[in-house]
Amino acid sequence: MKFNKVLKNLSTYEAGKPIELVVREYGINQKDVVKLASNENPYGTSPKVVAKIESLAKNMYLYPDDSMFELKEALANKFNLNSKNVIIGSGSDQILEFAVHAKCKKNSKVLMAQTTFAMYEIYSKQVGAKIIKTKSSQHNLKEFSKLYKKHGADVIFLCLPNNPLGECLDKDEVYEFLETIDKNTLVVVDGAYQEYASFKDEKKRISPKDLIEKFPNAIYLGTFSKAYALGGMRVGYGLANEDIISTFYKIRAPFNITTLSLAAAIEALKDQEFVDDCIEKNFKQMKRYEKYCQDNGFEYIPSYTNFITILFKNFISKEIAQKLLERGMIIRDLTGYGLNAIRVTIGTQAQNTKFFKLLTEVLEELK
Amino acid sequence: MKFNKVLKNLSTYEAGKPIELVVREYGINQKDVVKLASNENPYGTSPKVVAKIESLAKNMYLYPDDSMFELKEALANKFNLNSKNVIIGSGSDQILEFAVHAKCKKNSKVLMAQTTFAMYEIYSKQVGAKIIKTKSSQHNLKEFSKLYKKHGADVIFLCLPNNPLGECLDKDEVYEFLETIDKNTLVVVDGAYQEYASFKDEKKRISPKDLIEKFPNAIYLGTFSKAYALGGMRVGYGLANEDIISTFYKIRAPFNITTLSLAAAIEALKDQEFVDDCIEKNFKQMKRYEKYCQDNGFEYIPSYTNFITILFKNFISKEIAQKLLERGMIIRDLTGYGLNAIRVTIGTQAQNTKFFKLLTEVLEELK
Repeated sequence: MKFNKVLKNLSTYEAGKPIELVVREYGINQKDVVKLASNENPYGTSPKVVAKIESLAKNMYLYPDDSMFELKEALANKFNLNSKNVIIGSGSDQILEFAVHAKCKKNSKVLMAQTTFAMYEIYSKQVGAKIIKTKSSQHNLKEFSKLYKKHGADVIFLCLPNNPLGECLDKDEVYEFLETIDKNTLVVVDGAYQEYASFKDEKKRISPKDLIEKFPNAIYLGTFSKAYALGGMRVGYGLANEDIISTFYKIRAPFNITTLSLAAAIEALKDQEFVDDCIEKNFKQMKRYEKYCQDNGFEYIPSYTNFITILFKNFISKEIAQKLLERGMIIRDLTGYGLNAIRVTIGTQAQNTKFFKLLTEVLEELK
Repeated sequence: MKFNKVLKNLSTYEAGKPIELVVREYGINQKDVVKLASNENPYGTSPKVVAKIESLAKNMYLYPDDSMFELKEALANKFNLNSKNVIIGSGSDQILEFAVHAKCKKNSKVLMAQTTFAMYEIYSKQVGAKIIKTKSSQHNLKEFSKLYKKHGADVIFLCLPNNPLGECLDKDEVYEFLETIDKNTLVVVDGAYQEYASFKDEKKRISPKDLIEKFPNAIYLGTFSKAYALGGMRVGYGLANEDIISTFYKIRAPFNITTLSLAAAIEALKDQEFVDDCIEKNFKQMKRYEKYCQDNGFEYIPSYTNFITILFKNFISKEIAQKLLERGMIIRDLTGYGLNAIRVTIGTQAQNTKFFKLLTEVLEELK
């Protein structure tokens, strides 16, 4: 059967391997597998959220409230916006998809950093858009500006902080850049890890309200999958002016979020103490990674997230990742991103200790 | 901001009003609201599924198994297919979206019945495809054939049985029609209510395996939202040849299903007894609706689903629906589909009794 031409040679996203798969493929006991590959919150789900889910499980036969009234109100309150500025997606991923489908078609132009969240490129290519990337791996706004002046762009993706590298631009430099962007170019500010970045350094903090009031062509994306510990529930959101939000609603399929996901997100927003506590622990544990790298002479990218990218010179990252996997330690190899590096989610104290032990063991073997 | 032109004048799906909204808008006590508007299974979720969800709620911080290995295996076993023939969607809705995005672009042609599931048209229009509809409201394959010969089609949607009308074509006549269709036309056989139709009349039963082996250009869609009582969890599936499935996978976003949805669907498949029992009750209750219509001289469409469409001559369906809503009874008005009719989900014994009482009361008032 003939399909749309644009689908030929499309790449698909390679997700972090789930624990179940490692159990199946390597015959490792489930309790011995540690997954530090998908930047999940290793401290588990807030007990208040778990209790809420348990109380609602019996209602699963009913469709979700497709108006998402309560969650939109809760997010609007949190960010001092109106619920008309809010759209909910199945992960912030889905809002990326809305952005591309709203603005792009064949030969549209999409501008992004060389090494950034893979879905920007995948969604853009699905509609036949042309990808323009900076030469630098990390976000470099001078290069963004130069490319924008040369090619223009229908959509610009800024990942703040950047996944999978961990660096983060300052708010001031982002604003300065946005001043130069045409109001007809949609700028997606992906704040999936903003909770981490703004905790570590106030200069990184982007206020969604401030952003979208100053720049009507910007949309801020947030997620419940990271700091809010709901990766399995698929909830993200977009915050923008009504013009953008109402257009995205035309693309959104009804019931894009489950009943339990909605309830979990609403409850998670109420338990901010849990989130703050997790983020604090994250950066304490991050120091151990930095020290490990320094002690072993490995280069790493200072990270504003819950993961760290470690670059190798005398080892091959793909081999390291494979040998760790065989030992039940799942991390992310960045070879596919053109880097001889691994990305490791900052786990709990015990998980990180195990990682250091296994990495040392693996490196010894690969020497 | 300028968006893709095709988004102008796009209509959005009007979902059945959720109970929460009626509570908010009409100040009715939640326990007094009855929703017979979205064809949910009124007997609630299988207790085995509820128990499974409760046991997994604490794992929500982890991303789902994006390979969906276990659910795909379970569906492949159920239908005697290979897991390569299976794709999972956020409701079978999402598979409709994949179908349109894989086959259609601007000016593609999509053929469907005059009155059928609204999302066929909405998704098709989102990519700029042209909609070709039969004159008859219900599926009429002679008209389908005539239109196909005249215009051709990239995608044909058959809703078997049809939502929102409830009629269902026989398997034999569908097969006869499919013999005449070019192998490059994708035929979507939407079996969202097939469990009901095949229970009531064996002639309506479509075997997915048989269908896709005979017709490599067909895809069968099933859902967990109706008979399997998981409307709130958003799980559907597509069954087709590998060529189609692997192409759809290029369009699917990663993690399109939550962890709990996957687990719920796997568990629901194991509890077939619950499903069979619900379907049996459904048709017993349906008889009460038929008798009510006969007793009151209302025309209805004999239904192969868990809902019934009642047509009015001396009343205006929109007014009936509104007056029922004000009394806490949510049903679906079909004015938007060009029919002076209402669609009512077959509820439990008590819900249906309440519906008859309120409808009689409302009609008395409107006389």
